Amino acid sequence: MSDDNVPLHGLTRRSFGGLGVAAVLAPTIASAQRASESDRYRPQNHYSPAKGFMNDPNGLIFHQGEYHLFYQHNPFEAKAGHVHWGHAVSPDLLRWRELPVAIGETTAGQAFSGSAVYDRDNTSGLFPSKAGGLVAIYTRASDMRQAQEIATSTDRGRTWHAYPGNPVLDIGSFSFRDPKVLWHAPTKAWVMTVVRSREHRVMFYASPDLKRWTEVGSFGHAGLLGVDYECPDLVEVPIEGGGTRWVLFVSINPGAPLGGSAVQYFVGQFDGRRFEAEDGATRMADFGQDFYALQTFADVDGPPVAIAWMSNWLYCNDVPTSPSRGAMTLPRRLGLRRRADDWRLVQTPVALDPLAGATFLSGPRPRGFGLLASATLPPGVAIEVALRLKADPGAILTVRLGNARGETLSASFDAGAYPGFLVDRSGTRGFRHRYMVDRATWSAPPGTIATDMRLIIDRSSIELFGLGGEASGTMLQYFASPPDRLEVIAEGGAVTLIELGARGLKF
Amino acid sequence: MSDDNVPLHGLTRRSFGGLGVAAVLAPTIASAQRASESDRYRPQNHYSPAKGFMNDPNGLIFHQGEYHLFYQHNPFEAKAGHVHWGHAVSPDLLRWRELPVAIGETTAGQAFSGSAVYDRDNTSGLFPSKAGGLVAIYTRASDMRQAQEIATSTDRGRTWHAYPGNPVLDIGSFSFRDPKVLWHAPTKAWVMTVVRSREHRVMFYASPDLKRWTEVGSFGHAGLLGVDYECPDLVEVPIEGGGTRWVLFVSINPGAPLGGSAVQYFVGQFDGRRFEAEDGATRMADFGQDFYALQTFADVDGPPVAIAWMSNWLYCNDVPTSPSRGAMTLPRRLGLRRRADDWRLVQTPVALDPLAGATFLSGPRPRGFGLLASATLPPGVAIEVALRLKADPGAILTVRLGNARGETLSASFDAGAYPGFLVDRSGTRGFRHRYMVDRATWSAPPGTIATDMRLIIDRSSIELFGLGGEASGTMLQYFASPPDRLEVIAEGGAVTLIELGARGLKF
Repeated sequence: MSDDNVPLHGLTRRSFGGLGVAAVLAPTIASAQRASESDRYRPQNHYSPAKGFMNDPNGLIFHQGEYHLFYQHNPFEAKAGHVHWGHAVSPDLLRWRELPVAIGETTAGQAFSGSAVYDRDNTSGLFPSKAGGLVAIYTRASDMRQAQEIATSTDRGRTWHAYPGNPVLDIGSFSFRDPKVLWHAPTKAWVMTVVRSREHRVMFYASPDLKRWTEVGSFGHAGLLGVDYECPDLVEVPIEGGGTRWVLFVSINPGAPLGGSAVQYFVGQFDGRRFEAEDGATRMADFGQDFYALQTFADVDGPPVAIAWMSNWLYCNDVPTSPSRGAMTLPRRLGLRRRADDWRLVQTPVALDPLAGATFLSGPRPRGFGLLASATLPPGVAIEVALRLKADPGAILTVRLGNARGETLSASFDAGAYPGFLVDRSGTRGFRHRYMVDRATWSAPPGTIATDMRLIIDRSSIELFGLGGEASGTMLQYFASPPDRLEVIAEGGAVTLIELGARGLKF
Repeated sequence: MSDDNVPLHGLTRRSFGGLGVAAVLAPTIASAQRASESDRYRPQNHYSPAKGFMNDPNGLIFHQGEYHLFYQHNPFEAKAGHVHWGHAVSPDLLRWRELPVAIGETTAGQAFSGSAVYDRDNTSGLFPSKAGGLVAIYTRASDMRQAQEIATSTDRGRTWHAYPGNPVLDIGSFSFRDPKVLWHAPTKAWVMTVVRSREHRVMFYASPDLKRWTEVGSFGHAGLLGVDYECPDLVEVPIEGGGTRWVLFVSINPGAPLGGSAVQYFVGQFDGRRFEAEDGATRMADFGQDFYALQTFADVDGPPVAIAWMSNWLYCNDVPTSPSRGAMTLPRRLGLRRRADDWRLVQTPVALDPLAGATFLSGPRPRGFGLLASATLPPGVAIEVALRLKADPGAILTVRLGNARGETLSASFDAGAYPGFLVDRSGTRGFRHRYMVDRATWSAPPGTIATDMRLIIDRSSIELFGLGGEASGTMLQYFASPPDRLEVIAEGGAVTLIELGARGLKF
């Protein structure tokens, strides 16, 4: 069948070359060499394309030693539109190499979000040998119609061939998108999770061959509806202490409580046809304003690994980065924790040791009040701050970055009457937008006075992980002048820093 | 039985008199006369007690020509604690007269939230005549135990007598509170909606006499759990165009998405025993950060009328008001609107015409760009701004209050790609708090370019109502210097003001 496949790019490869999106060194590698003024907010340890616009992660898969990150991409300019699938690969989820656009816009429409699987048994019959190959499943979106298409690759995702029988799933809807496909071993079937976005319904389809799809179940309305459901993901997640649950992630945009875009999740069981939520609760995957379209990698051993888009539709076209806009969060391992009557998604960013630079602050600090530790920041690099603390009830521990111009960015743990975490970007002056909230908070269980806390602060982002990964807070942030000082401060009571470490991160 | 009732106040009436909480003119009336510096943020058209602390509305009922507003109240100081039931009455939901504390803290514990009903048929047998009387149902809360008690009044709520058989409902829990009781005519029973707060479960109990309660159903986990469920309310709400649904309101604190406190609701059916939600969605009653513990009035004709506490537990003890802290929202009529596949709670504040002062801005404005209208504000008074507009796609209409010191407070309608409302308090400098977000947003249906918009701006609050009441945004705000100017501005495109009116509000 593959001989009949047609090239997928609506634009010729040459035209892409002309746009400069041929294989280039990953921006995360190349950024230091060209940290121009216009590029000064480019992430060092988070993926962003060399140029153009990026939003949702797509087609995440580990295959033949490479992690593939495809993504919604406008190669023409740093504004949303003309959606192609961009492409990058990494050996370790940290260092990414950008490759040419994988799937293009065509006259039939843009290449909206979707997923990729390894059809190892050639169930599709689309591969010349039993060895199979990669299949991408995505939404072809015109103004009037959103339908699911597939494409195949036999060269490790470098080139893709559209299936001539496309679309493989078309219900005549203008709001039917973002297919995430998994192999469901118990029922020996491919299962597609996809949304009827405007109807706020998650649909499940099954297929023996990735080409013929049968509706087998649905879920919704559920949780926060927003204007649209988007980018669902259904994944089996290990529970700390044993067992698993299925977690159904559903992104909403706009209409998230903080404004714009957010990811919620539901915990339950999945039998290959129906997702049964364990309760009627909806839970937020991240408490910041810049975390959207979470997706997990196919074919990763162990706990699932997820990446989300680190922005918000309310201002993603306006953030002051150039020549690209859009970055991904750090990849995170996912787990589930039972907490009293509640479930908590636990997120652990992949270990950054391969990127570790010089440690500039370390060692415990005895129980104290006020300024507990401080350091000059290594210029121009991303940093990671890790600490473990025990606070007097009522104390607040703040990690603060600042500069001589009085700008500040802070992350706090509050051991007060309502314990929790706070990320505060109100003191940064590099970029303001009508819809950017200045801070975001997360509530810890009552009585919490001890926690771990891990911060990864890149040139235009902060990710906070706390309470063993229960708290995840992701926010963009833009200093007008780079921060050059880090302070750790206890207020309202004394705090013991049982562990403290801060290091630069190489790129 | 009533002869055996015991006085409810743990503290004697005389001690209250000594604290100055005997009947006084309502602060809303008295405030202008004593607008001292310390009192300058006192609401004019929103209820706040003369002194002390106030949180949840309790026992809302219309009875013998009076609206009763009881509330969680610390009469001793303007900090949470020593919870009594404060009391105020109004002939019109606008002008309130503060009365002595109704139900006091006792050695058995504080008087936590609850409700009031008129036992018109003396089902309780607690009244000397068939004419019955008022029954308050509330939580008696010690550190270790929360149980439901009742008290009776035969003098229009002025004095209350605890039922000697209290508690009437005790399950041995430390987190079982906030009973809201209604008469369910179809089953001829009293129904109590109450929460097992830490377990995130709404419980339903039925009783023939308000004394003996039988568990008949429960609901939860559902929606956003927060740390605690609080202050449930179950009420039948008319649908625009005909019919009704039951709406179950559940407040959560802390852990709301914007931080701290928020009210969500579920739409469904109630048969006297079980609440069946129509879908798995949770919806937010208000998009601001200062709207909590919504409760509806018993025995009001027509659509339900609700009041919420206009603050947030994360900073309610710190707001810069004196000698009292805490205010209620304006009362709002409730309705339901079907919008595509979604339900929308519709809130309409009670007509403020009885308070209407001079109109200082009026008339339509032709399609225009930039500054469409402006006026000097009448000094020191609350204002109401009402407009109806049609915007060019992409335009933003902002109503902005400001002063010569550069402070601003604004409310906008955005007719852009993601239409909606925005309240922005970032430009006010009278009070900042670690947990106060600077802005809040609400998403309108795609393509919305026309709307009504109504703002009630009191000395330390702003309430926005938009899209025929679908949007309700309530935020505290504190100017360092009072605003003296109002501007209406179109940006990003032209806007036609079909109607425009702004008036002062007397108190």
